[in-house]
Amino acid sequence: MSDSVRRLIGVLGGMGPMATIDFMAKVVALTPASCDQEHLPLIVHQVPQIPDRTRAIMAGSDAPLAPMLAGLRTLARAGAEFAVIPCNTAHHWYAQLSQLQQLPLLHIAEAVRQELIFRELHGKQVALMATRGTHLAGVYSGRLGPGFEPLLGGGQDVQQLVDVSIAAVKAGKLAQATHAAVEAADRLLSAGAEVLILGCTELPVALANTAIQSRCIDSTLALARLCVKEGMRHDTEARRLTLEH
Amino acid sequence: MSDSVRRLIGVLGGMGPMATIDFMAKVVALTPASCDQEHLPLIVHQVPQIPDRTRAIMAGSDAPLAPMLAGLRTLARAGAEFAVIPCNTAHHWYAQLSQLQQLPLLHIAEAVRQELIFRELHGKQVALMATRGTHLAGVYSGRLGPGFEPLLGGGQDVQQLVDVSIAAVKAGKLAQATHAAVEAADRLLSAGAEVLILGCTELPVALANTAIQSRCIDSTLALARLCVKEGMRHDTEARRLTLEH
Repeated sequence: MSDSVRRLIGVLGGMGPMATIDFMAKVVALTPASCDQEHLPLIVHQVPQIPDRTRAIMAGSDAPLAPMLAGLRTLARAGAEFAVIPCNTAHHWYAQLSQLQQLPLLHIAEAVRQELIFRELHGKQVALMATRGTHLAGVYSGRLGPGFEPLLGGGQDVQQLVDVSIAAVKAGKLAQATHAAVEAADRLLSAGAEVLILGCTELPVALANTAIQSRCIDSTLALARLCVKEGMRHDTEARRLTLEH
Repeated sequence: MSDSVRRLIGVLGGMGPMATIDFMAKVVALTPASCDQEHLPLIVHQVPQIPDRTRAIMAGSDAPLAPMLAGLRTLARAGAEFAVIPCNTAHHWYAQLSQLQQLPLLHIAEAVRQELIFRELHGKQVALMATRGTHLAGVYSGRLGPGFEPLLGGGQDVQQLVDVSIAAVKAGKLAQATHAAVEAADRLLSAGAEVLILGCTELPVALANTAIQSRCIDSTLALARLCVKEGMRHDTEARRLTLEH
Protein backbone atom coordinates (compact mmCIF):
# COMPACT_ATOMS: atom_id res chain seq x y z
CA MET A 1 0.00 0.00 0.00
CA SER A 2 1.14 3.55 -0.67
CA ASP A 3 -0.76 6.78 -0.10
CA SER A 4 -0.66 7.58 -3.79
CA VAL A 5 -3.23 4.94 -4.72
CA ARG A 6 -5.83 6.28 -2.30
CA ARG A 7 -7.90 9.03 -3.90
CA LEU A 8 -9.61 11.67 -1.77
CA ILE A 9 -13.34 10.94 -1.92
CA GLY A 10 -15.94 13.67 -1.52
CA VAL A 11 -19.15 12.70 0.25
CA LEU A 12 -22.16 14.97 -0.21
CA GLY A 13 -23.92 13.81 2.92
CA GLY A 14 -26.47 14.90 5.49
CA MET A 15 -29.38 13.43 3.51
CA GLY A 16 -29.89 12.22 6.13
CA PRO A 17 -27.17 12.36 8.78
CA MET A 18 -27.46 8.76 10.04
CA ALA A 19 -27.47 7.45 6.46
CA THR A 20 -24.18 9.26 5.80
CA ILE A 21 -22.66 7.79 8.97
CA ASP A 22 -23.87 4.33 7.92
CA PHE A 23 -22.24 4.88 4.52
CA MET A 24 -18.94 5.91 6.10
CA ALA A 25 -18.97 2.86 8.39
CA LYS A 26 -19.52 0.62 5.37
CA VAL A 27 -16.60 2.26 3.52
CA VAL A 28 -14.36 1.58 6.53
CA ALA A 29 -15.60 -2.02 6.84
CA LEU A 30 -15.02 -2.72 3.14
CA THR A 31 -11.52 -1.21 3.05
CA PRO A 32 -8.65 -3.64 3.55
CA ALA A 33 -6.63 -1.85 6.23
CA SER A 34 -4.57 -2.85 9.25
CA CYS A 35 -3.98 0.68 10.61
CA ASP A 36 -5.40 4.20 10.27
CA GLN A 37 -3.13 5.20 7.41
CA GLU A 38 -4.35 2.41 5.11
CA HIS A 39 -7.97 3.58 5.25
CA LEU A 40 -9.46 5.72 2.50
CA PRO A 41 -9.45 9.50 2.87
CA LEU A 42 -12.84 11.20 2.74
CA ILE A 43 -14.09 14.76 2.94
CA VAL A 44 -17.66 14.67 4.18
CA HIS A 45 -20.13 17.51 3.72
CA GLN A 46 -22.57 16.51 6.45
CA VAL A 47 -24.84 19.54 6.06
CA PRO A 48 -28.45 18.44 6.47
CA GLN A 49 -30.00 21.84 5.76
CA ILE A 50 -30.54 20.88 2.10
CA PRO A 51 -34.31 21.13 1.45
CA ASP A 52 -36.35 17.91 1.49
CA ARG A 53 -35.77 16.12 -1.81
CA THR A 54 -39.06 14.26 -2.08
CA ARG A 55 -41.08 17.36 -1.25
CA ALA A 56 -39.26 19.25 -4.01
CA ILE A 57 -39.83 16.51 -6.60
CA MET A 58 -43.53 16.28 -5.70
CA ALA A 59 -43.81 20.08 -6.05
CA GLY A 60 -41.79 20.26 -9.27
CA SER A 61 -39.18 22.38 -7.50
CA ASP A 62 -35.38 22.39 -7.87
CA ALA A 63 -34.81 23.87 -4.39
CA PRO A 64 -32.23 21.22 -3.34
CA LEU A 65 -30.10 21.71 -6.47
CA ALA A 66 -28.27 24.94 -5.56
CA PRO A 67 -27.23 23.86 -2.04
CA MET A 68 -26.13 20.45 -3.36
CA LEU A 69 -24.01 22.18 -6.03
CA ALA A 70 -22.52 24.43 -3.36
CA GLY A 71 -21.68 21.36 -1.29
CA LEU A 72 -19.99 19.63 -4.21
CA ARG A 73 -17.97 22.76 -4.96
CA THR A 74 -16.85 22.87 -1.34
CA LEU A 75 -15.72 19.26 -1.64
CA ALA A 76 -13.84 20.03 -4.86
CA ARG A 77 -12.07 22.99 -3.24
CA ALA A 78 -11.10 20.71 -0.35
CA GLY A 79 -9.32 18.48 -2.85
CA ALA A 80 -11.84 15.70 -3.52
CA GLU A 81 -11.15 13.78 -6.75
CA PHE A 82 -14.65 12.38 -7.20
CA ALA A 83 -17.84 12.40 -5.17
CA VAL A 84 -20.70 10.23 -3.99
CA ILE A 85 -24.13 11.14 -2.64
CA PRO A 86 -25.50 8.61 -0.13
CA CYS A 87 -29.08 9.66 -0.84
CA ASN A 88 -31.11 7.99 -3.59
CA THR A 89 -33.70 10.74 -4.01
CA ALA A 90 -30.99 13.36 -4.59
CA HIS A 91 -30.06 11.46 -7.75
CA HIS A 92 -33.09 13.01 -9.43
CA TRP A 93 -30.67 15.92 -10.04
CA TYR A 94 -27.73 13.68 -11.03
CA ALA A 95 -27.43 15.02 -14.60
CA GLN A 96 -27.45 18.66 -13.51
CA LEU A 97 -25.09 17.99 -10.62
CA SER A 98 -22.67 16.32 -13.03
CA GLN A 99 -22.88 19.07 -15.62
CA LEU A 100 -22.78 22.14 -13.38
CA GLN A 101 -19.67 21.38 -11.34
CA GLN A 102 -16.37 19.65 -11.97
CA LEU A 103 -16.29 16.58 -9.70
CA PRO A 104 -17.09 13.23 -11.32
CA LEU A 105 -20.03 11.64 -9.48
CA LEU A 106 -20.72 7.96 -8.91
CA HIS A 107 -24.41 7.05 -9.41
CA ILE A 108 -26.06 5.06 -6.63
CA ALA A 109 -28.28 3.08 -9.04
CA GLU A 110 -25.19 2.06 -11.03
CA ALA A 111 -23.72 0.84 -7.75
CA VAL A 112 -26.89 -1.19 -7.13
CA ARG A 113 -26.71 -2.60 -10.67
CA GLN A 114 -23.18 -3.80 -9.97
CA GLU A 115 -24.27 -5.20 -6.61
CA LEU A 116 -27.05 -7.24 -8.28
CA ILE A 117 -24.40 -8.75 -10.57
CA PHE A 118 -21.97 -9.26 -7.66
CA ARG A 119 -24.70 -11.10 -5.75
CA GLU A 120 -25.71 -13.10 -8.89
CA LEU A 121 -29.36 -12.08 -8.70
CA HIS A 122 -30.09 -11.90 -12.42
CA GLY A 123 -33.64 -12.96 -13.24
CA LYS A 124 -35.03 -12.49 -9.73
CA GLN A 125 -38.19 -10.48 -9.15
CA VAL A 126 -37.00 -7.29 -7.50
CA ALA A 127 -38.99 -4.69 -5.63
CA LEU A 128 -37.84 -1.16 -4.93
CA MET A 129 -38.31 0.31 -1.47
CA ALA A 130 -37.75 4.04 -1.82
CA THR A 131 -39.12 7.51 -1.20
CA ARG A 132 -42.06 8.77 -3.24
CA GLY A 133 -39.56 11.17 -4.80
CA THR A 134 -37.27 8.37 -5.99
CA HIS A 135 -40.24 6.48 -7.47
CA LEU A 136 -41.71 9.58 -9.14
CA ALA A 137 -38.34 10.74 -10.50
CA GLY A 138 -37.56 7.27 -11.82
CA VAL A 139 -34.08 7.28 -10.30
CA TYR A 140 -33.74 3.54 -11.00
CA SER A 141 -35.63 3.51 -14.31
CA GLY A 142 -33.59 1.93 -17.07
CA ARG A 143 -30.50 1.71 -14.87
CA LEU A 144 -30.55 -1.90 -13.68
CA GLY A 145 -30.53 -3.64 -17.05
CA PRO A 146 -33.34 -5.56 -18.83
CA GLY A 147 -33.26 -8.53 -16.43
CA PHE A 148 -34.54 -6.39 -13.60
CA GLU A 149 -37.48 -4.56 -15.17
CA PRO A 150 -40.20 -3.83 -14.24
CA LEU A 151 -39.62 -3.13 -10.57
CA LEU A 152 -42.43 -4.15 -8.30
CA GLY A 153 -42.95 -1.23 -5.92
CA GLY A 154 -45.91 -2.19 -3.76
CA GLY A 155 -49.09 -0.23 -3.24
CA GLN A 156 -49.96 2.80 -1.18
CA ASP A 157 -50.04 0.84 2.09
CA VAL A 158 -46.47 -0.33 1.58
CA GLN A 159 -45.37 3.17 0.58
CA GLN A 160 -46.90 4.64 3.73
CA LEU A 161 -44.93 2.19 5.86
CA VAL A 162 -41.74 3.05 3.97
CA ASP A 163 -42.40 6.78 4.46
CA VAL A 164 -42.93 6.25 8.20
CA SER A 165 -39.73 4.25 8.50
CA ILE A 166 -37.59 6.82 6.68
CA ALA A 167 -38.96 9.74 8.69
CA ALA A 168 -38.43 7.82 11.93
CA VAL A 169 -34.72 7.22 11.16
CA LYS A 170 -34.27 10.94 10.52
CA ALA A 171 -35.98 11.70 13.85
CA GLY A 172 -33.87 9.17 15.77
CA LYS A 173 -36.81 6.82 16.46
CA LEU A 174 -35.11 3.61 15.49
CA ALA A 175 -37.54 1.08 16.97
CA GLN A 176 -40.42 2.69 15.07
CA ALA A 177 -38.30 2.79 11.91
CA THR A 178 -37.45 -0.90 12.16
CA HIS A 179 -41.03 -1.96 12.82
CA ALA A 180 -42.42 -0.09 9.80
CA ALA A 181 -39.65 -1.21 7.42
CA VAL A 182 -39.97 -4.88 8.42
CA GLU A 183 -43.74 -4.71 7.88
CA ALA A 184 -43.28 -3.11 4.44
CA ALA A 185 -40.64 -5.68 3.47
CA ASP A 186 -42.84 -8.58 4.63
CA ARG A 187 -45.73 -7.34 2.48
CA LEU A 188 -43.51 -7.04 -0.60
CA LEU A 189 -42.09 -10.54 -0.08
CA SER A 190 -45.63 -11.92 0.39
CA ALA A 191 -46.62 -10.22 -2.87
CA GLY A 192 -43.96 -12.17 -4.75
CA ALA A 193 -40.80 -10.09 -4.55
CA GLU A 194 -37.65 -12.18 -4.25
CA VAL A 195 -35.16 -9.37 -3.70
CA LEU A 196 -35.78 -6.00 -2.08
CA ILE A 197 -33.72 -3.03 -3.18
CA LEU A 198 -33.31 -0.71 -0.20
CA GLY A 199 -33.37 2.29 -2.49
CA CYS A 200 -33.33 4.88 0.28
CA THR A 201 -30.26 5.13 2.50
CA GLU A 202 -32.36 5.38 5.67
CA LEU A 203 -33.76 1.87 5.12
CA PRO A 204 -30.51 -0.05 5.79
CA VAL A 205 -30.29 1.87 9.08
CA ALA A 206 -33.88 0.83 9.89
CA LEU A 207 -33.24 -2.81 8.96
CA ALA A 208 -29.78 -3.19 10.53
CA ASN A 209 -29.55 -6.41 12.54
CA THR A 210 -32.84 -7.81 11.21
CA ALA A 211 -33.15 -11.18 9.48
CA ILE A 212 -34.76 -9.55 6.45
CA GLN A 213 -31.39 -8.04 5.45
CA SER A 214 -30.50 -11.31 3.72
CA ARG A 215 -33.29 -10.67 1.19
CA CYS A 216 -32.16 -7.09 0.51
CA ILE A 217 -29.80 -5.19 -1.73
CA ASP A 218 -28.54 -2.32 0.40
CA SER A 219 -27.95 0.75 -1.81
CA THR A 220 -25.66 2.25 0.86
CA LEU A 221 -23.48 -0.86 0.94
CA ALA A 222 -23.49 -0.98 -2.87
CA LEU A 223 -22.36 2.65 -3.08
CA ALA A 224 -19.69 2.02 -0.44
CA ARG A 225 -18.36 -0.99 -2.36
CA LEU A 226 -18.16 1.01 -5.61
CA CYS A 227 -16.62 3.93 -3.73
CA VAL A 228 -13.87 1.75 -2.22
CA LYS A 229 -13.18 0.26 -5.66
CA GLU A 230 -12.90 3.73 -7.22
CA GLY A 231 -11.01 5.18 -4.27
CA MET A 232 -8.28 2.56 -4.45
CA ARG A 233 -7.78 2.47 -8.20
CA HIS A 234 -5.67 4.89 -10.16
CA ASP A 235 -6.04 3.56 -13.67
CA THR A 236 -7.76 6.49 -15.38
CA GLU A 237 -8.95 4.49 -18.37
CA ALA A 238 -10.66 1.84 -16.28
CA ARG A 239 -12.20 4.49 -14.06
CA ARG A 240 -14.06 5.98 -17.03
CA LEU A 241 -15.97 2.74 -17.44
CA THR A 242 -17.76 3.07 -14.12
CA LEU A 243 -17.87 6.80 -13.53
CA GLU A 244 -20.73 8.45 -15.35
CA HIS A 245 -20.95 12.03 -16.55
CA MET B 1 -35.50 26.11 15.25
CA SER B 2 -33.90 28.27 12.57
CA ASP B 3 -30.79 27.53 10.52
CA SER B 4 -29.05 30.57 11.94
CA VAL B 5 -28.52 29.03 15.37
CA ARG B 6 -26.71 25.99 13.95
CA ARG B 7 -23.01 26.68 13.49
CA LEU B 8 -20.97 24.72 10.96
CA ILE B 9 -18.69 22.41 12.93
CA GLY B 10 -15.34 21.26 11.58
CA VAL B 11 -14.27 17.74 12.51
CA LEU B 12 -10.59 16.88 12.13
CA GLY B 13 -11.16 13.15 11.93
CA GLY B 14 -9.61 9.97 10.61
CA MET B 15 -7.71 9.34 13.87
CA GLY B 16 -9.01 6.72 13.53
CA PRO B 17 -11.82 6.40 10.99
CA MET B 18 -14.23 4.34 13.13
CA ALA B 19 -13.71 6.70 16.09
CA THR B 20 -14.75 9.64 13.89
CA ILE B 21 -17.84 7.76 12.74
CA ASP B 22 -18.69 6.94 16.37
CA PHE B 23 -18.29 10.63 17.22
CA MET B 24 -20.61 11.69 14.38
CA ALA B 25 -23.23 9.13 15.45
CA LYS B 26 -23.10 10.52 18.99
CA VAL B 27 -23.53 14.09 17.71
CA VAL B 28 -26.62 12.97 15.78
CA ALA B 29 -28.01 11.06 18.77
CA LEU B 30 -27.52 14.03 21.12
CA THR B 31 -29.07 16.59 18.76
CA PRO B 32 -32.77 17.29 19.30
CA ALA B 33 -34.10 16.93 15.74
CA SER B 34 -37.25 15.63 14.11
CA CYS B 35 -36.05 15.86 10.49
CA ASP B 36 -32.80 16.18 8.52
CA GLN B 37 -32.80 19.96 8.51
CA GLU B 38 -32.77 20.26 12.31
CA HIS B 39 -29.53 18.28 12.66
CA LEU B 40 -26.19 20.04 13.08
CA PRO B 41 -24.06 20.75 10.01
CA LEU B 42 -20.57 19.26 10.01
CA ILE B 43 -17.62 19.28 7.67
CA VAL B 44 -15.57 16.17 8.33
CA HIS B 45 -11.94 15.79 7.32
CA GLN B 46 -11.78 12.01 7.48
CA VAL B 47 -8.20 11.72 6.21
CA PRO B 48 -6.43 8.94 8.12
CA GLN B 49 -3.02 9.44 6.48
CA ILE B 50 -1.89 11.65 9.40
CA PRO B 51 1.19 9.93 10.94
CA ASP B 52 0.69 7.84 14.07
CA ARG B 53 0.41 10.22 17.04
CA THR B 54 1.73 7.95 19.77
CA ARG B 55 4.73 6.93 17.71
CA ALA B 56 5.55 10.61 17.11
CA ILE B 57 5.26 11.50 20.82
CA MET B 58 7.44 8.55 21.83
CA ALA B 59 10.03 9.63 19.25
CA GLY B 60 9.85 13.33 20.13
CA SER B 61 8.64 14.10 16.62
CA ASP B 62 6.06 16.66 15.45
CA ALA B 63 5.30 14.76 12.23
CA PRO B 64 1.49 14.82 12.73
CA LEU B 65 1.38 18.60 13.29
CA ALA B 66 1.68 19.84 9.70
CA PRO B 67 -0.98 17.51 8.21
CA MET B 68 -3.33 18.30 11.13
CA LEU B 69 -2.85 22.04 10.52
CA ALA B 70 -3.52 21.50 6.82
CA GLY B 71 -6.72 19.64 7.72
CA LEU B 72 -7.91 22.41 10.01
CA ARG B 73 -7.20 25.01 7.32
CA THR B 74 -9.24 22.97 4.84
CA LEU B 75 -12.10 22.93 7.35
CA ALA B 76 -11.82 26.70 7.84
CA ARG B 77 -11.89 27.30 4.09
CA ALA B 78 -15.00 25.11 3.88
CA GLY B 79 -16.70 27.49 6.30
CA ALA B 80 -16.34 25.76 9.67
CA GLU B 81 -16.81 28.12 12.64
CA PHE B 82 -14.99 26.00 15.21
CA ALA B 83 -13.43 22.55 15.23
CA VAL B 84 -13.11 19.37 17.25
CA ILE B 85 -10.60 16.54 17.06
CA PRO B 86 -12.06 13.17 18.10
CA CYS B 87 -8.60 11.83 18.99
CA ASN B 88 -7.16 12.26 22.49
CA THR B 89 -3.52 11.72 21.54
CA ALA B 90 -3.67 14.46 18.92
CA HIS B 91 -4.34 16.92 21.74
CA HIS B 92 -0.63 16.77 22.57
CA TRP B 93 -0.40 19.45 19.84
CA TYR B 94 -3.49 21.38 21.01
CA ALA B 95 -1.60 24.61 21.85
CA GLN B 96 0.21 24.72 18.51
CA LEU B 97 -2.93 23.77 16.58
CA SER B 98 -4.79 26.62 18.28
CA GLN B 99 -2.05 29.17 17.69
CA LEU B 100 -1.08 28.32 14.12
CA GLN B 101 -4.49 28.44 12.46
CA GLN B 102 -7.67 30.45 12.92
CA LEU B 103 -10.40 27.99 13.98
CA PRO B 104 -11.25 27.87 17.69
CA LEU B 105 -10.76 24.30 18.94
CA LEU B 106 -12.68 22.50 21.67
CA HIS B 107 -10.42 20.43 23.95
CA ILE B 108 -11.44 16.82 24.53
CA ALA B 109 -10.17 16.80 28.15
CA GLU B 110 -12.26 19.89 28.88
CA ALA B 111 -15.24 17.98 27.49
CA VAL B 112 -14.41 15.08 29.83
CA ARG B 113 -14.10 17.49 32.76
CA GLN B 114 -17.61 18.77 32.02
CA GLU B 115 -18.88 15.19 31.63
CA LEU B 116 -17.52 14.26 35.08
CA ILE B 117 -19.49 17.19 36.52
CA PHE B 118 -22.58 16.30 34.44
CA ARG B 119 -22.43 12.76 35.79
CA GLU B 120 -21.78 14.00 39.36
CA LEU B 121 -18.63 11.94 39.80
CA HIS B 122 -16.66 14.35 41.96
CA GLY B 123 -14.46 12.57 44.50
CA LYS B 124 -14.45 9.21 42.74
CA GLN B 125 -11.19 7.41 42.02
CA VAL B 126 -10.72 7.71 38.28
CA ALA B 127 -8.41 5.76 36.01
CA LEU B 128 -7.37 6.84 32.55
CA MET B 129 -7.39 4.33 29.72
CA ALA B 130 -5.44 5.91 26.87
CA THR B 131 -2.60 5.49 24.42
CA ARG B 132 0.99 5.61 25.66
CA GLY B 133 1.21 8.91 23.77
CA THR B 134 -1.68 10.47 25.72
CA HIS B 135 -0.16 9.31 29.03
CA LEU B 136 3.35 10.50 28.13
CA ALA B 137 2.12 13.84 26.77
CA GLY B 138 -0.03 14.41 29.84
CA VAL B 139 -3.06 15.34 27.74
CA TYR B 140 -5.30 15.12 30.83
CA SER B 141 -2.77 16.48 33.36
CA GLY B 142 -4.18 19.39 35.31
CA ARG B 143 -7.31 19.50 33.16
CA LEU B 144 -9.87 17.64 35.26
CA GLY B 145 -9.73 19.74 38.42
CA PRO B 146 -8.22 18.90 41.85
CA GLY B 147 -10.94 16.37 42.76
CA PHE B 148 -9.74 14.02 40.04
CA GLU B 149 -5.98 13.92 40.59
CA PRO B 150 -3.95 11.80 40.52
CA LEU B 151 -5.27 9.56 37.78
CA LEU B 152 -4.66 5.90 38.32
CA GLY B 153 -3.39 4.55 35.01
CA GLY B 154 -2.65 0.88 35.59
CA GLY B 155 0.60 -0.93 34.97
CA GLN B 156 2.31 -2.24 31.86
CA ASP B 157 0.02 -5.28 31.60
CA VAL B 158 -3.05 -3.04 31.47
CA GLN B 159 -1.37 -0.71 28.96
CA GLN B 160 -0.53 -3.63 26.70
CA LEU B 161 -4.19 -4.70 26.68
CA VAL B 162 -5.26 -1.13 25.91
CA ASP B 163 -2.74 -0.94 23.06
CA VAL B 164 -4.02 -4.21 21.60
CA SER B 165 -7.61 -3.03 21.81
CA ILE B 166 -6.93 0.30 20.09
CA ALA B 167 -4.93 -1.29 17.27
CA ALA B 168 -7.65 -3.92 16.77
CA VAL B 169 -10.37 -1.27 16.31
CA LYS B 170 -8.24 0.45 13.66
CA ALA B 171 -7.76 -2.91 11.90
CA GLY B 172 -11.48 -3.74 12.01
CA LYS B 173 -11.03 -6.64 14.46
CA LEU B 174 -13.82 -5.71 16.81
CA ALA B 175 -14.13 -8.95 18.80
CA GLN B 176 -10.43 -8.83 19.65
CA ALA B 177 -10.74 -5.14 20.54
CA THR B 178 -13.65 -5.79 22.89
CA HIS B 179 -11.96 -8.71 24.61
CA ALA B 180 -8.77 -6.76 25.34
CA ALA B 181 -10.55 -3.60 26.49
CA VAL B 182 -12.89 -5.50 28.84
CA GLU B 183 -9.91 -7.30 30.36
CA ALA B 184 -8.03 -4.01 30.88
CA ALA B 185 -11.12 -2.37 32.39
CA ASP B 186 -11.69 -5.32 34.75
CA ARG B 187 -8.11 -5.10 36.02
CA LEU B 188 -8.41 -1.36 36.68
CA LEU B 189 -11.71 -1.81 38.53
CA SER B 190 -10.18 -4.67 40.58
CA ALA B 191 -7.27 -2.35 41.44
CA GLY B 192 -9.66 0.17 42.97
CA ALA B 193 -10.75 2.45 40.15
CA GLU B 194 -14.36 3.58 40.44
CA VAL B 195 -14.65 5.41 37.12
CA LEU B 196 -12.76 4.66 33.90
CA ILE B 197 -12.06 7.50 31.52
CA LEU B 198 -12.04 6.10 28.01
CA GLY B 199 -9.37 8.57 26.99
CA CYS B 200 -8.83 7.18 23.52
CA THR B 201 -11.68 7.41 21.01
CA GLU B 202 -11.17 3.82 19.84
CA LEU B 203 -12.08 2.48 23.30
CA PRO B 204 -15.79 3.43 23.22
CA VAL B 205 -15.99 1.57 19.89
CA ALA B 206 -14.34 -1.47 21.52
CA LEU B 207 -16.65 -1.33 24.56
CA ALA B 208 -19.91 -0.52 22.74
CA ASN B 209 -22.73 -2.74 24.00
CA THR B 210 -20.76 -4.08 26.98
CA ALA B 211 -21.93 -3.83 30.58
CA ILE B 212 -18.69 -2.09 31.56
CA GLN B 213 -19.83 1.09 29.77
CA SER B 214 -21.81 2.08 32.86
CA ARG B 215 -18.51 2.48 34.77
CA CYS B 216 -16.94 4.57 32.01
CA ILE B 217 -16.67 8.20 30.96
CA ASP B 218 -16.62 8.09 27.16
CA SER B 219 -14.41 10.92 25.84
CA THR B 220 -16.11 10.66 22.43
CA LEU B 221 -19.56 11.11 23.95
CA ALA B 222 -18.25 13.95 26.12
CA LEU B 223 -16.80 15.73 23.09
CA ALA B 224 -20.04 15.16 21.15
CA ARG B 225 -22.08 16.64 24.01
CA LEU B 226 -19.88 19.74 24.20
CA CYS B 227 -19.90 20.00 20.41
CA VAL B 228 -23.72 19.92 20.25
CA LYS B 229 -23.87 22.56 22.99
CA GLU B 230 -21.43 24.80 21.13
CA GLY B 231 -22.96 24.09 17.72
CA MET B 232 -26.41 25.19 18.84
CA ARG B 233 -25.46 28.32 20.76
CA HIS B 234 -24.83 31.69 19.21
CA ASP B 235 -24.06 33.79 22.23
CA THR B 236 -20.47 34.80 21.54
CA GLU B 237 -19.73 35.87 25.10
CA ALA B 238 -20.89 32.59 26.61
CA ARG B 239 -18.99 30.65 23.97
CA ARG B 240 -15.70 32.17 25.11
CA LEU B 241 -16.14 30.55 28.48
CA THR B 242 -15.83 27.02 27.11
CA LEU B 243 -13.75 27.47 23.98
CA GLU B 244 -10.04 27.57 24.72
CA HIS B 245 -7.33 29.27 22.76
